[in-house]
Amino acid sequence: MTGHLDYVAVVPEREIRRRVAGFQRRLGRAGIDVALVVQNADLYYLTGTVQQSHLFVPAAGDPVLLVRKDPERAAAESPLEVESLSSMRSLPEVLPRLGLPANAAIGLELDVLPVRNYQRYQKIFPEARLVDCSAALLEERAIKSEWEFSVLEQCAQLAKASLEAAAAQIRVGITELELSAILEGAMRRLGHQGVVRFRAFNQEMLQAHVFAGPDAGRSSYMDGPLGGRGLTPAVSQGASRRPIGRGEAIVIDFPGTRDGYMVDQTRTLSIGPLPDDLQAAYDGCAQIEDLLSTVAVPGALCGEVYEAAASKAADLGYGDCFMGAPMPVRFIGHGVGIELDELPVLMRGSDRPLESGNVIALEPKVLLSGRGTVGVENTWVVGDGGLRRITAARNEVWEL
Amino acid sequence: MTGHLDYVAVVPEREIRRRVAGFQRRLGRAGIDVALVVQNADLYYLTGTVQQSHLFVPAAGDPVLLVRKDPERAAAESPLEVESLSSMRSLPEVLPRLGLPANAAIGLELDVLPVRNYQRYQKIFPEARLVDCSAALLEERAIKSEWEFSVLEQCAQLAKASLEAAAAQIRVGITELELSAILEGAMRRLGHQGVVRFRAFNQEMLQAHVFAGPDAGRSSYMDGPLGGRGLTPAVSQGASRRPIGRGEAIVIDFPGTRDGYMVDQTRTLSIGPLPDDLQAAYDGCAQIEDLLSTVAVPGALCGEVYEAAASKAADLGYGDCFMGAPMPVRFIGHGVGIELDELPVLMRGSDRPLESGNVIALEPKVLLSGRGTVGVENTWVVGDGGLRRITAARNEVWEL
Repeated sequence: MTGHLDYVAVVPEREIRRRVAGFQRRLGRAGIDVALVVQNADLYYLTGTVQQSHLFVPAAGDPVLLVRKDPERAAAESPLEVESLSSMRSLPEVLPRLGLPANAAIGLELDVLPVRNYQRYQKIFPEARLVDCSAALLEERAIKSEWEFSVLEQCAQLAKASLEAAAAQIRVGITELELSAILEGAMRRLGHQGVVRFRAFNQEMLQAHVFAGPDAGRSSYMDGPLGGRGLTPAVSQGASRRPIGRGEAIVIDFPGTRDGYMVDQTRTLSIGPLPDDLQAAYDGCAQIEDLLSTVAVPGALCGEVYEAAASKAADLGYGDCFMGAPMPVRFIGHGVGIELDELPVLMRGSDRPLESGNVIALEPKVLLSGRGTVGVENTWVVGDGGLRRITAARNEVWEL
Repeated sequence: MTGHLDYVAVVPEREIRRRVAGFQRRLGRAGIDVALVVQNADLYYLTGTVQQSHLFVPAAGDPVLLVRKDPERAAAESPLEVESLSSMRSLPEVLPRLGLPANAAIGLELDVLPVRNYQRYQKIFPEARLVDCSAALLEERAIKSEWEFSVLEQCAQLAKASLEAAAAQIRVGITELELSAILEGAMRRLGHQGVVRFRAFNQEMLQAHVFAGPDAGRSSYMDGPLGGRGLTPAVSQGASRRPIGRGEAIVIDFPGTRDGYMVDQTRTLSIGPLPDDLQAAYDGCAQIEDLLSTVAVPGALCGEVYEAAASKAADLGYGDCFMGAPMPVRFIGHGVGIELDELPVLMRGSDRPLESGNVIALEPKVLLSGRGTVGVENTWVVGDGGLRRITAARNEVWEL
């Protein structure tokens, strides 16, 4: 039945093999006998397909991908051996096939797996020791490959083209919501995959954050510097119904998302010139970005990179309005890839070193109370030669 | 700082008070001393605001809403007493204020709470007995109020208007993706809140499912009858880049979403008349819907309602292609409200009775292999006088 549907793989086989092998090494070092991976982002990373799946990755040996509903599609999209799974009760049968005892150490994604699902696995594997394999997986995911860079560059093209399409429609009086709808429609038409994956519990990312004017961009329930007012207390982020006026700082912050990956990008726009204080604040953000591009090198500690940005912001006079309000976030950037909140997190106190192959979004932002919010965000590859920018949109304030 | 931002409440105070009281009765019956609610959908239901919050609801007494980042906004949007929370370590101080001992039975939302978060609460409340309060909460949420019906009717107007706007743009050769982008943009402009809340782990709902033609609508990793091909193996649901031809069954299935609530709606459309076999299959779905509107009454068991639909489908000759392929789902509908997958679930074997005040989406769908997918979905209030339809779009096949 699937033949005529021509499902095709996107992630190359060599990528999958390399990722699985890297994850296996980390499992071995962590003393985990086998990982049982079930979350969509992790499944995509390790298999190249997202179906209702249970993926066993032993510390040594071949993975086993068990799929409900549509194993044929999974088999067309993944280089791994796919089997049909009819009942979760048959999961324990995989252990002896992998040469593992019933009391093996089984790694689960405990940072995302709900307690009730966990309790079901406790019943299914009554003798096993259930441990957390999420760190091993997220560490592996944090080092991107050349192939991943190329997909991220396609994401950057989508982000650039959709922002240009939306910017062309901005007129005095257009509401934040109308502008957001235009941008979201443009992104989707250009191939946005439709969902933005966010790993942290309760974090729901809109397709885009669009806001302008003196009160725009206040922080919300989202783990980021800016949030926005939103349309309703039920989803208090993103665009409101407020019309945009001349000379207001318009902030457009969104992930360009396709083929499972995303870049993160923010630009500040204005109908006519920005007032001097807002332009100066933007220039400050740009200076911080320039500084970061020399500081954020392999081996630099994430906390040091944050402190360099915060210290520069203070020097520029933005110490009390840097990275959001009413409660600023103490970070300056984050890993990005299949999810919007990947490792590393460039936050206060982190002694994690940056590594070559990390992909990070750096987002200096300033909120001038009663005046407006400005900022810039680009996505970068951390490399031995320094940062390389992936996001491709014009970097200055977009004066319309 | 918030005054000039004019945040306003949406959910009336009497609603919040009634919901809290109803939840408290269920907590008391379940022997749970206090619930600690943290998930966005549940927070919105019980407080009227979504911020980074910990809500204590004791089985008796006043709730305590503790908020990080923006307690002022929460206080403006919720009638509950709001306090600022600076550290999770201070959470245990609430127990004695509620007259509860350190070894109280604390209810958590174990169906959605990640294991790692749960382990943090174990450390914070080392003596407490942590139990699952999600059933009590979901049961309370399943009985909607007159005020909720009125919000759902506004959702239905959004669903109707956005479908009409998109349908007006359908031409031979438009791709599923282009049509989906137009629909999604229209929904957003009309006030779609930007996110579609889905409770089940790993279920990610696109803003809309748009697909057409002989192979459209195959089931995916989503827990529904139809899925769609999507743009990428990373998100294998919804529109593909396939152009839509004359006489193809176009299925458009999406939640109309605003102010925290949603209705679910599916329509079948066609450029020119549908071929006879697809029209007959649609007529079959319509007959099943008519049947359900007399069967789905208060007291009817959800499993019986499903069997009535399945049996009627079999009588009509669709026994082997009813509710999706390659693996049909054994259900005919689901509760809907703040999340797309609320109680009750009208599935095989369920001995749960329908109750007056339930809001359910019924969605008979047929997939004729190699020919096309058709179906209809409306959202209904279960009442003592029978079902009352909320969704407002024209119910027949939309011939364009």
